[in-house]
Amino acid sequence: MEYIISNKMKDMKGSAIREIFKHAADPRTISLAGGNPSPETFPSKELAEIANRLLTEEPVMSLQYGVTEGYPKLREAVRDRLLRKEGIGCENDDLIIVSGGQQGIDLTAKVLLNEGDTVIVEEPSFIGALNAFRSYGAHLCGVPMEEDGISIEALEKAISENENVRILYTIPNFQNPSGITMSENKRRAVYDIAKKNNIIIIEDNPYGELSFDGVHIPPVKSFDDGSRVVYCGSFSKILSPGLRLGFCMGPKEIIAKDIIAKQANDVHTPMLTQLMAYEYMTKYDIDKNIARSAKLYAEKCKHMIGCIEKYFPSEVTHTNPRGGLFIWCDMGKGYDASQAVKKCAENKVVFVPGTTFMCDMSKPSSAFRLNYSTVSEEKAEEGIKIIGETLKEIMK
Amino acid sequence: MEYIISNKMKDMKGSAIREIFKHAADPRTISLAGGNPSPETFPSKELAEIANRLLTEEPVMSLQYGVTEGYPKLREAVRDRLLRKEGIGCENDDLIIVSGGQQGIDLTAKVLLNEGDTVIVEEPSFIGALNAFRSYGAHLCGVPMEEDGISIEALEKAISENENVRILYTIPNFQNPSGITMSENKRRAVYDIAKKNNIIIIEDNPYGELSFDGVHIPPVKSFDDGSRVVYCGSFSKILSPGLRLGFCMGPKEIIAKDIIAKQANDVHTPMLTQLMAYEYMTKYDIDKNIARSAKLYAEKCKHMIGCIEKYFPSEVTHTNPRGGLFIWCDMGKGYDASQAVKKCAENKVVFVPGTTFMCDMSKPSSAFRLNYSTVSEEKAEEGIKIIGETLKEIMK
Repeated sequence: MEYIISNKMKDMKGSAIREIFKHAADPRTISLAGGNPSPETFPSKELAEIANRLLTEEPVMSLQYGVTEGYPKLREAVRDRLLRKEGIGCENDDLIIVSGGQQGIDLTAKVLLNEGDTVIVEEPSFIGALNAFRSYGAHLCGVPMEEDGISIEALEKAISENENVRILYTIPNFQNPSGITMSENKRRAVYDIAKKNNIIIIEDNPYGELSFDGVHIPPVKSFDDGSRVVYCGSFSKILSPGLRLGFCMGPKEIIAKDIIAKQANDVHTPMLTQLMAYEYMTKYDIDKNIARSAKLYAEKCKHMIGCIEKYFPSEVTHTNPRGGLFIWCDMGKGYDASQAVKKCAENKVVFVPGTTFMCDMSKPSSAFRLNYSTVSEEKAEEGIKIIGETLKEIMK
Repeated sequence: MEYIISNKMKDMKGSAIREIFKHAADPRTISLAGGNPSPETFPSKELAEIANRLLTEEPVMSLQYGVTEGYPKLREAVRDRLLRKEGIGCENDDLIIVSGGQQGIDLTAKVLLNEGDTVIVEEPSFIGALNAFRSYGAHLCGVPMEEDGISIEALEKAISENENVRILYTIPNFQNPSGITMSENKRRAVYDIAKKNNIIIIEDNPYGELSFDGVHIPPVKSFDDGSRVVYCGSFSKILSPGLRLGFCMGPKEIIAKDIIAKQANDVHTPMLTQLMAYEYMTKYDIDKNIARSAKLYAEKCKHMIGCIEKYFPSEVTHTNPRGGLFIWCDMGKGYDASQAVKKCAENKVVFVPGTTFMCDMSKPSSAFRLNYSTVSEEKAEEGIKIIGETLKEIMK
């Protein structure tokens, strides 16, 4: 039977990464493909204690319906933390608890976009966000990345050349997939350009707390007067991704519509998981756990870069992330990284081709993304060695 | 600042019920407004045991990312249960775990609807579903309810008079808000009409297991060959609404798109809550808990109807639900129930005016919805008495 699928969803395909994730179940496969945090960082003992206590002492609150905008005490705790850590949140900002940072992007896209409207994104960018925009029929316009973040010149050009530019989507810290961090100057420039052109910025910061060197750059949201920046954050990389918890802070007028969209989407984020995050944030040492996680990833990243420099052809470039979970490598002009990905998969090493993170996924890309957060150092070295051998063969 | 909101979301308002729910926090208020299951029905002791065990023995599976379509063992357990209890699910059907039944409706609407497409709904109907359709710019066409379900004559007329009718939305069992159950004959007729006109049916069955008399009528989905009916179910009324767990079974082609839409929306439903539902379904006696819940609601419903017959003016009609959570009352032509709702709220009794459940919410309705699931018998009598006095005053 032929189904009539909506125009916005007709050509949508699933995330290539989640497909790899699904098929990388073979225990012999070395996966550098995912974006999973390391299970070592999950405070599972504490969460077991908390869940048991909540379901015993607060069963009704944990299991009954809640309000769409989220558990009030968790909203307050997150606002406090954002003000303290990031210096953001003013009188005209409101905050909603969402089912993972992804949902903040999805709801805001639904609220702001008509089909055909333009969303400007860094290129490469996070496929989850690209797909959220695509699923509302947006026209994606990619702006290339430089060492210190999005190209300002290309951004201005993109705005002047496109109609109905509604959203500028950016991941300023340890970007997925590039690992690049945007400089403070560029953050200010991006804000000013958005203001001048009446564009809403979605600032996505799932990795910000995973800094290797402790250097803090003010978020784009810190330049905002509560009128223009929707800031999305997540518990996925600082507590647990499987709990699906995030938050979204932005202009009251936009968050009010996000709440209405969420009500029609999933009514509210589960109460039990919200209460668990609140208890963990306020009664345990979340900062200690984050510091421990950041240290772990810093070591893993350093080790993988060491392996890359040992095993990859010298022409292959790589970024030097100052935090987060990803390294971006580039084979250089004329090469198609998908070919290397396919060959390596045959040898049971998986990672993600650059084309996955582009607005036009049909064009080949010479780049690819490596993840170091879950693999052991031994397996990382084995994997990078195999990739290196494959690259040498292709590039000889 | 003026924001440009998408056409589909521009005029969307929040659910009036959830607004009442939010403001009915005053402990003196008697609320007959919600749709909450009774907290007595939550197996919280068992869930505390389960959560503690999962987070202790399976911490990585409970806290790490999962696949979008849901925890495989839970999907299988739900499919088994649907086949056993409802006789539904064939080779061309697939099943996705969603974050509450609401999300199954939302995702399917997103997948099937372009702005301006028509969705045919029972009138009155569940506001959460109406809002999901509205949020994708659908044109809603309401078909009146009769004692044995939707009017078949009016349904055929509605289809012939509207263009691009894509979805027919129905709640055949103990409908929200009317409490009406659709007869088997009408279910067959509805399926045949949908087939003839190439319309997808969304069959919503959150209350089906809460039958007072144990009489089982085959769902519309049972007449389907896996081509036309998307069946949405929920754990909200048989386990816990706050866990936000539901499922959606339908043609593979549509579920495949639902999965892609969900990936872009919230990646997946939390692992911990999925695992909890699976453990409870397979290692505890969920049927016993459901039977206990149904018995409780049967008693509460019977008691409330007794009060209605004692205190309401005799001209006010009411439905006699055979299950579920709601009674529908009608003051009769010429009256506006909103007036009664407002007056009663001043006397601290809240319930929901009929207009809330209509396609055109600006038209007054002489009907209103009462909920009996959470209120004590004492409070129910007190509340119904106050409503009765108000109605007598208005209708004298």
